[in-house]
Amino acid sequence: MPATSFPADATLADAGEFPLIAAFQEIFEEGEHVLVGSGDDAAVLRVKTGHVVVSTDLMVEGRHFRRDWAGAADVGARAAAQNLSDINAMGGRATSLTLGLAAPPDLRVEWVLDFARGFADECAKVGASVVGGDVTASDTLVIAGTVLGACTIAPVVRSGAEPGDVVALCGRQGWAAGGLAVLGRGFRSPRVLVEAYRRPQPPYDAGEVAAESGATAMIDVSDGLLADAAHVAEASGVAIDIRTAAFEIAEPLHAVGAALGADPIQFILGGGDDHPLLACFASSDEVPEGWQVIGSVNEPDHDGAAVTVDGAPYEGETGWTHF
Amino acid sequence: MPATSFPADATLADAGEFPLIAAFQEIFEEGEHVLVGSGDDAAVLRVKTGHVVVSTDLMVEGRHFRRDWAGAADVGARAAAQNLSDINAMGGRATSLTLGLAAPPDLRVEWVLDFARGFADECAKVGASVVGGDVTASDTLVIAGTVLGACTIAPVVRSGAEPGDVVALCGRQGWAAGGLAVLGRGFRSPRVLVEAYRRPQPPYDAGEVAAESGATAMIDVSDGLLADAAHVAEASGVAIDIRTAAFEIAEPLHAVGAALGADPIQFILGGGDDHPLLACFASSDEVPEGWQVIGSVNEPDHDGAAVTVDGAPYEGETGWTHF
Repeated sequence: MPATSFPADATLADAGEFPLIAAFQEIFEEGEHVLVGSGDDAAVLRVKTGHVVVSTDLMVEGRHFRRDWAGAADVGARAAAQNLSDINAMGGRATSLTLGLAAPPDLRVEWVLDFARGFADECAKVGASVVGGDVTASDTLVIAGTVLGACTIAPVVRSGAEPGDVVALCGRQGWAAGGLAVLGRGFRSPRVLVEAYRRPQPPYDAGEVAAESGATAMIDVSDGLLADAAHVAEASGVAIDIRTAAFEIAEPLHAVGAALGADPIQFILGGGDDHPLLACFASSDEVPEGWQVIGSVNEPDHDGAAVTVDGAPYEGETGWTHF
Repeated sequence: MPATSFPADATLADAGEFPLIAAFQEIFEEGEHVLVGSGDDAAVLRVKTGHVVVSTDLMVEGRHFRRDWAGAADVGARAAAQNLSDINAMGGRATSLTLGLAAPPDLRVEWVLDFARGFADECAKVGASVVGGDVTASDTLVIAGTVLGACTIAPVVRSGAEPGDVVALCGRQGWAAGGLAVLGRGFRSPRVLVEAYRRPQPPYDAGEVAAESGATAMIDVSDGLLADAAHVAEASGVAIDIRTAAFEIAEPLHAVGAALGADPIQFILGGGDDHPLLACFASSDEVPEGWQVIGSVNEPDHDGAAVTVDGAPYEGETGWTHF
């Protein structure tokens, strides 16, 4: 049954599992590395590199997204971006994804297919294929994405930062948090921030380049800049200092800060929805083009926080916690 | 923080995300093929075979399991079994899993850790490692498992059955459906059936053996015997006839059938929670030891059903649908 043959107001319960899967199969194109694709007990993928990089992420309606804050295609793109960014953060390139969708039976098929199109569009940015998944009924809408990929050189883990390294960032940071703050107050502008929240633009080419440039540690900013810097600091057994003067605060963030009575640097330090990469390099000479040095790696200070801002503990929100 | 240090009545909200992940890391042992394990943006796994087999499954509380019908470790084992069985059905062997858990913040940590132990125990049966995942809050408890594996010879897909093949089954079938029927009426016995539902025993060695014996098509029975036979028939463009006389109906199934006023063959034909393998072979000479011939593959009959029982369309429930 072609996807277009569902009535406009059909729900998942109306459509049924197998027509829905058939519609997904029309939307998700499979690359040449897919030896057995969607529709069997499992997919079979060609692996040329001797290893596979794998990561799983969940998104839950009401916690990670709201259907009244972003369109279905945006939610799909954001779900895929979250997955793809994890491979980017290892210095790799995503090749394949599986998509699990637990959804209320009264959800409209149209929403789900638009979601799938957004997911597919984002995957296409890096040439990755959706190779399978699962759909089932659930009172809560939960999206479970798993991404597979490969690294051309050794993966960059979180634990390799050394005192003396510089800390650098690649990609927009704080824009999505600004957009989220705006939506949370019931507004829809500045539109550029709301769009940044709805459709993050992770720097998908930057992870491989950083790995090739000798990045000692890397992470994607998904929990919050300071929270994710702390993950690197803890895994590496070092301290990290972030310098706020390194950030040029974009005009829309100033505007939102003024409107909400907040210091706009908070969006940058605590935001986690833009998925830029944070990496450490042995010296600023090694930092690739397009990256901005934002801090330094220091000896651990056992009396203080793993991450400081301008040399002092930070009192604001450092990021997101899941419980 | 060691897993044992959570207070006995601690909830996920009390524990917090990162101590919970640390406890998972204690429970999940990683094999030597795990180059980078849980705790980074992604795991990195050694792949020696030039390919990877991957499958994702969801389990939703109230639809796929009930916490009052099975203990946490049983739910974990069943979630893992469902994943592992999909690799078995390709003729492969699972190596690695990721586990996504979307759970209510007031769920007890003890339940989650027992769940994780059951999941780990089932994975250990085939030597597979849990290499990462995600935990997040959700009103509905949803388990998202993704399994990776490999085949030693060509994977066995659903689409290779040919008219003239025999259909064979390996593993217990109908017991879990009998147990589920019992639990659904508020009973707890026959205990052997209830236990079969709580802890399926998929024949994890049978998939590889069937592949080596020349199986032309294979599937694991997870939707229901007739429903899954229909998946093979449709993918292969053939008809399948199942012979009820081939099944020896176990005494506890007779007992439950008598108690519930049902023909016990219904549990066998419609049940989907035991995860046996159904495969087709060119002749009964090729059927490996431990498999039972239960039917035949025929030319497609365009006027009739893809699957018949004793030569006639079946009027009862053929299996499970997700919406």
